[in-house]
Amino acid sequence: MSNLTSARVSQQRLWDRHESLARIGATPGGGVNRQALSKEDIAACRQLIDWGNTIGLQASRDEAGNIFLRLEGTDSLAAPVISGSHLDSQPTGGKYDGAYGVLAALEACQAIVESGVRPVRPIEVVAWMNEEGSRFAPGMMGASVFGGARSLDQITSIRDPQGISVGDALRDAQQAMADIPQRDLGRPTFAYVEAHIEQGPLLEREHKAIGVVSGIQGKRTFMVNIEGEASHAGTSLRSERRDALLAAMRIIQALTIHIHDEHDVVKFTIGRFDVTPNAPSVVPSRVRFSIDLRHPDSNVLASLGDAIAGICETHAAPCHVQVDELSSAMSLEFPQDMRQRIRDAADLLDITRMEILSAAGHDARYLHPICPSAMLFIPCHEGITHNESESITAADAAAGARVLTEVIMSLAGS
Amino acid sequence: MSNLTSARVSQQRLWDRHESLARIGATPGGGVNRQALSKEDIAACRQLIDWGNTIGLQASRDEAGNIFLRLEGTDSLAAPVISGSHLDSQPTGGKYDGAYGVLAALEACQAIVESGVRPVRPIEVVAWMNEEGSRFAPGMMGASVFGGARSLDQITSIRDPQGISVGDALRDAQQAMADIPQRDLGRPTFAYVEAHIEQGPLLEREHKAIGVVSGIQGKRTFMVNIEGEASHAGTSLRSERRDALLAAMRIIQALTIHIHDEHDVVKFTIGRFDVTPNAPSVVPSRVRFSIDLRHPDSNVLASLGDAIAGICETHAAPCHVQVDELSSAMSLEFPQDMRQRIRDAADLLDITRMEILSAAGHDARYLHPICPSAMLFIPCHEGITHNESESITAADAAAGARVLTEVIMSLAGS
Repeated sequence: MSNLTSARVSQQRLWDRHESLARIGATPGGGVNRQALSKEDIAACRQLIDWGNTIGLQASRDEAGNIFLRLEGTDSLAAPVISGSHLDSQPTGGKYDGAYGVLAALEACQAIVESGVRPVRPIEVVAWMNEEGSRFAPGMMGASVFGGARSLDQITSIRDPQGISVGDALRDAQQAMADIPQRDLGRPTFAYVEAHIEQGPLLEREHKAIGVVSGIQGKRTFMVNIEGEASHAGTSLRSERRDALLAAMRIIQALTIHIHDEHDVVKFTIGRFDVTPNAPSVVPSRVRFSIDLRHPDSNVLASLGDAIAGICETHAAPCHVQVDELSSAMSLEFPQDMRQRIRDAADLLDITRMEILSAAGHDARYLHPICPSAMLFIPCHEGITHNESESITAADAAAGARVLTEVIMSLAGS
Repeated sequence: MSNLTSARVSQQRLWDRHESLARIGATPGGGVNRQALSKEDIAACRQLIDWGNTIGLQASRDEAGNIFLRLEGTDSLAAPVISGSHLDSQPTGGKYDGAYGVLAALEACQAIVESGVRPVRPIEVVAWMNEEGSRFAPGMMGASVFGGARSLDQITSIRDPQGISVGDALRDAQQAMADIPQRDLGRPTFAYVEAHIEQGPLLEREHKAIGVVSGIQGKRTFMVNIEGEASHAGTSLRSERRDALLAAMRIIQALTIHIHDEHDVVKFTIGRFDVTPNAPSVVPSRVRFSIDLRHPDSNVLASLGDAIAGICETHAAPCHVQVDELSSAMSLEFPQDMRQRIRDAADLLDITRMEILSAAGHDARYLHPICPSAMLFIPCHEGITHNESESITAADAAAGARVLTEVIMSLAGS
């Protein structure tokens, strides 16, 4: 065995933990449904804490529902190196999105513990609360509160489709984890490194094992509320109807035309669409739909996003429309010296690598403003993600965890 | 007091019963949510049975969940005259749709009892199960099983959006009513008369108190299932997406154009629209939407309806689409001699009347094939219905109940 710390990374153990975790909230289609603060999400955090305990990591949680496992450093007062991602999933999500980054960080800590090396700085594995934003929109909630971009008050009143608020769900989660010590929100952080599956096809196509993430493309999210009037499907005249669904169709068609981009760079998605009263023989009185808009060029993103409200208003008649912007994040670039640490670790381990822009948003977005941050990607088969058939290989998972281990050790010092 | 039986109809009592019933499943917006076989629907049936008990009507229920209250005739072996409607509602329905026809029939029976007249034929008040079809589609379930157009087996496997089947819900309802005797499904029926609010603006506009319903316009209902593929809103290329929501938009636009009718006679409604997984940052993998298509001319209805599947298939790519027809009912005309009884009763009572086509479907559709059937309408403010603000006047309600009483007595004999 090499005398590098990362030589202690166990491909089998890392893979087995993915399989164990995927049983929590497993779906018939082979994926997971572990939405933020659900009992499945809490059970997954419990499992993580149990694994941490077996190697001596001390668990804590903060008021935003983030979970931390701390490996003590020789200088316990030094700001920690944090690494992790999230354990929540989309309703029909895959087994690796988020989970990989948390388990790779746990594996890195276990490799460090087993190697007998004592890091100078403490190392903390983190599972951020609600990255996905599917149950409670917007996503990256826990990381954004930790990073200070949102206050706890801003998120607690947000409700899921069943009317349960983030505040209520956090209280339930905290009761279920009453035995885990609570820590203050936020903290000085020395550096943050997040491993994640690529969620795109580039690494696989280019036969590279590691993506050194240059930055994250910008994203703006909106909620469009259309108010019409309920009426009887058999009696009300078309000319007198105020059909919220047909207004939504016209609006979406106009948005699609406006946002169309022949180079296929812009990402425009309507993922959530709720109709009221949603009954076959009633003309819809209300439609509420989400818009997810992304573009790597912050200027293009700004101009496309700024046009949305006007387009909705132009095409809403005879209904009323209101457009709320839920989140707005411009494109960002990770610092070169952090990216260099990933390149160096990959080269040291003779693992292939390439630079890559993250098209998806990640928790790292909200750490970037408060500490030097970086991300590394591993390949994801055919780029299929947010889908039950998401898949990765055990070898790629282990290679990513080895690189991560070396990066963490280079930051923590020994 | 006139010596007509209908003189015993009490406007106040009839109105009070509407108010009492509207408390069961009351919504904040002033309407009711009493979906088929819900606990609210069952509670409304209970209330009806209690009222029937106080005037000596004997309650029974059949396997399809229909509830009957029988006023015995001097010839107890004669086929009964049945009158009623339904107590279930849309999710945000009004207080009078359906409830009026049941309470008017109950009021007619009470007037007959209090007048001391003994009808020759038994008279039965009925509350048909699931007329609305909002929780379990299609509607008019109980009446269609009673009339033999559908079998019990055909309806029991239908599920609501929560996955509960009609069979399960019927079992629960029957347990809750274990003390009410069960009767065989179907029965020889001498005649059926249904009173209902118009659900359109014509009677009010023409200042007529009674609509003598000439027939019911035809209706076909469909469910369209579009299968695409879930993918990540931030990473998947537009050109590679199989977005079920955008396919639904294209299909609906094409259907709207095809079905457009400059004379505004055709009724085309997409009332239910469900997206999977319905998460803001996931490209929709599946959309399921309803189509409600009506036209008074059966030939036009047939040709428009027959074109739907082809249009869906033409515009679904790159998704797959499947179109299922849930129900198909051509336009029908009620027999002239039944309509004449309503005209005669209105004239006898000096109540204004006009002929009217029912644009909405009603339970009477399924009684029409098995016995002489008829319907009478009362005005409904501005034609607003399937809406919490649906409204009628107490005077119109009472006038309709008086006409109904005379029609029932003319059929039952004395």
